[in-house]
Amino acid sequence: MERRERADAARNRQAILRAAEELLRRHPPEQVSVERVAAAAGVGKGTVFHRFGSRTGLMLELMSERAREFEQAFTEGPPPLGPGAEPVERLVAFFADLAVLAARNGNLVSAIEHARVTTKAHGEQRREENPIYRSWHRHVSRLIAEGRSDVDAEQIAHMLLGTLHMEPIASQLRAGQHERLAAGFADLVSGLLR
Amino acid sequence: MERRERADAARNRQAILRAAEELLRRHPPEQVSVERVAAAAGVGKGTVFHRFGSRTGLMLELMSERAREFEQAFTEGPPPLGPGAEPVERLVAFFADLAVLAARNGNLVSAIEHARVTTKAHGEQRREENPIYRSWHRHVSRLIAEGRSDVDAEQIAHMLLGTLHMEPIASQLRAGQHERLAAGFADLVSGLLR
Repeated sequence: MERRERADAARNRQAILRAAEELLRRHPPEQVSVERVAAAAGVGKGTVFHRFGSRTGLMLELMSERAREFEQAFTEGPPPLGPGAEPVERLVAFFADLAVLAARNGNLVSAIEHARVTTKAHGEQRREENPIYRSWHRHVSRLIAEGRSDVDAEQIAHMLLGTLHMEPIASQLRAGQHERLAAGFADLVSGLLR
Repeated sequence: MERRERADAARNRQAILRAAEELLRRHPPEQVSVERVAAAAGVGKGTVFHRFGSRTGLMLELMSERAREFEQAFTEGPPPLGPGAEPVERLVAFFADLAVLAARNGNLVSAIEHARVTTKAHGEQRREENPIYRSWHRHVSRLIAEGRSDVDAEQIAHMLLGTLHMEPIASQLRAGQHERLAAGFADLVSGLLR
């Protein structure tokens, strides 16, 4: 009986996350309410709050889940993203996937940034202390250092990761475009490491 | 008599701009009031308002003046920043000077960004429509295209110019540090163009 309850809970959790993901793909984040997610997932509103604490908790969990999948792919997955390829190939693959992730999750990122602004009074987390950012920065720094021992890999990793957030790149990503950004990364990284 | 009045006005204008510049170098922008600038310049508060319209007008004029000097240097000044050097050398010089400008003017940029946020209701200007940004972007794009005809020069120029504004680079600049950023630009640009 207890095992069945846990299985139900896991199924509900997945259904809620998938429903939120699907809604965020098609609607601006401010229109994706807990009520709407609950209805799309076929659960009660109380179940969403019980599992995720709040709407922000749900958004953060969705972003964390995607970031975990991406991290697993670049640390343990097949090459060229994962181990086994040259640093330059791994970096080109990393930034191409990061551009796709940023373009696909533009609404989600907005929803989280919005949540952060509104909870600013409780202390804002600095970007470089965010565990997701730190994991990306560590990965990129290591690969740059592997390919070029004579450059300031940590600084260049911050510079490359920073390019996603400024206009007009941010607008491209919000519009779902990632090819130009991925090509720009590929040229910068190939130039640096070859 | 009229000529003398014009000369006085020009001298006042310069004295006010230099006083504001000096105060912004030593104090956080919120402490640099029109009263304080006027006192340091040896003019009345009314003269500042008469010349620049408002505190924001003064800040914008100061930023514009520096940007004009910089633009003149990279379009007509001596090499390697100005014409006569290879594209890669000109780009390395441009980004080194831009890093210095950004580090020296961190307080000024904050003062202007703050002014912009508070006047957001009157319609915010998009970064890529700002004439200063456009002039920098045009210059960088052209030099990249001259050095590498096979890359998306406009996109890469936006990416490189965007790196100044994200954390932790923005914090380095606010602390007056520009060497690491300049070195990072030099490695990225040299890799791309050599």
